[in-house]
Amino acid sequence: MLGVVGFVGMGMIGGSLAMALRKAGVVERVLALDSSKDALLRALELGVIDEACDWQGLEVADVIVICVPVDSFFMVCRNLAALSLKDSVVITDVGSTKGSVVEAVRAGFGFLPQGFVPAHPIAGRERSGVQYAEADLFLRRKVILTTLPESSDRALGVVSRLWLACGALVRYMPLALHDEVLGATSHLPHVLAYLLVDMLSHDLNHEDIFSFAAGGFRDFTRIASSSPEMWRDICVHNAEVLQVLLAKYRARIEDFERLLALGAGDKIEDIFMRAKSARDEHYQKEQE
Amino acid sequence: MLGVVGFVGMGMIGGSLAMALRKAGVVERVLALDSSKDALLRALELGVIDEACDWQGLEVADVIVICVPVDSFFMVCRNLAALSLKDSVVITDVGSTKGSVVEAVRAGFGFLPQGFVPAHPIAGRERSGVQYAEADLFLRRKVILTTLPESSDRALGVVSRLWLACGALVRYMPLALHDEVLGATSHLPHVLAYLLVDMLSHDLNHEDIFSFAAGGFRDFTRIASSSPEMWRDICVHNAEVLQVLLAKYRARIEDFERLLALGAGDKIEDIFMRAKSARDEHYQKEQE
Repeated sequence: MLGVVGFVGMGMIGGSLAMALRKAGVVERVLALDSSKDALLRALELGVIDEACDWQGLEVADVIVICVPVDSFFMVCRNLAALSLKDSVVITDVGSTKGSVVEAVRAGFGFLPQGFVPAHPIAGRERSGVQYAEADLFLRRKVILTTLPESSDRALGVVSRLWLACGALVRYMPLALHDEVLGATSHLPHVLAYLLVDMLSHDLNHEDIFSFAAGGFRDFTRIASSSPEMWRDICVHNAEVLQVLLAKYRARIEDFERLLALGAGDKIEDIFMRAKSARDEHYQKEQE
Repeated sequence: MLGVVGFVGMGMIGGSLAMALRKAGVVERVLALDSSKDALLRALELGVIDEACDWQGLEVADVIVICVPVDSFFMVCRNLAALSLKDSVVITDVGSTKGSVVEAVRAGFGFLPQGFVPAHPIAGRERSGVQYAEADLFLRRKVILTTLPESSDRALGVVSRLWLACGALVRYMPLALHDEVLGATSHLPHVLAYLLVDMLSHDLNHEDIFSFAAGGFRDFTRIASSSPEMWRDICVHNAEVLQVLLAKYRARIEDFERLLALGAGDKIEDIFMRAKSARDEHYQKEQE
């Protein structure tokens, strides 16, 4: 049993987690705090939470889950630091960039609490808001816990159990590796998709371009329909990793332009074959 | 009625077109030629064509459809030029790059036949081979006819009617615009997807990278599972357009890196918002 779980931020991810925990029967009570009264009312109406609370209300919590944009972490932690939280309180989050989350938590508290274990569920959706919450959102989805030397073993155990109760596949990863891996597989593709659509929408022929685009283009650019605010946040908070990846990718494009100029069809085919087999090999395993 | 239709090349696209025309009841007889005996046998077994033929056999054709890789167009047209084709014969094709197709046809015949009208059905599949042919492949799919000053009105009418009989949405476009629009919406995204997967598969952490990739990455890279041979061909044959697009895109990435270095979250958000609204606006119309 996880006891009383308090959410700071009640959106689609926080709401889904609350629903999953209640469905699994592992919580005594679910409290939530949000800057939007509407979000809290909706969460109550939908039966996602037991109670809306204020900051003081979190003092009874056994587990606190921070589900706000990374930009707000510092303020949230400053507020938490001013409360009389339980000594045994476990604190976790669902942020997409972990280096900046840990920095903000450390700055907000003035130290890194031993009850804090950062988590990142790999279960994105294009929609946001508690009305889109689903109890099964994390079922068989990977959740990465970034292990910190400062976290206590008990806190790591509690947060692991919390996600296991939601049916998630819990994985552990050092913090720096998390930000690199997510930078490569998530942040970089999002930036590339946004930049492509923005470039083409400024083209003189943009009407033709969009209306003659086939299914491949639609899939390729789907992530450019994600939340601009959220992705700005992620980019700014993982900027260093992203800059390295973008520069590397840009060099690849330049090499490819050279191959085109030379008409080096064989080398072009080599690149395409390597990419196809890398992708096919992985997704065969996963059964696309 | 289109009379006798002869296919040069009997793969997935040629086979689907043959099936669609027979289903529509607008052909007298379907002949086909292919360098692979297996492909012809399979097409006969599956009832896709009436008859396998040799080059001479095409002399009775009223319409000839060239369905081979662009690399082979020159040789195909040299062979056709040596036959006693009907004076009224209409010739068309299904190639993805039109500038190089027209050049190859002109070189193969020694002139641009007035019966020739280039066509490009926007209905790709990752699979190739006549066994994957489907009579409904072109139903409600766009087919671009690139209008040439040399083409006769009658030929344009015949080729239009041919695609309309398959249920396709026939559109007309000048040749240069075709190669630019397809370069932007199809060739460029394919190259970008191939380059990203190839880059990440060389990363030290590539095992983690692929196993933690979420649905967005899967969609974004799906086109990197397309045929390397076909896409090498397309890149080489639309190299000039692609080089311009890649250089332009590379400059966008460089600008974005600068915004990241400056921490210019507001400008980053602007780009993302513009892209999202451009994409959403189009796909709302099309009902994704």
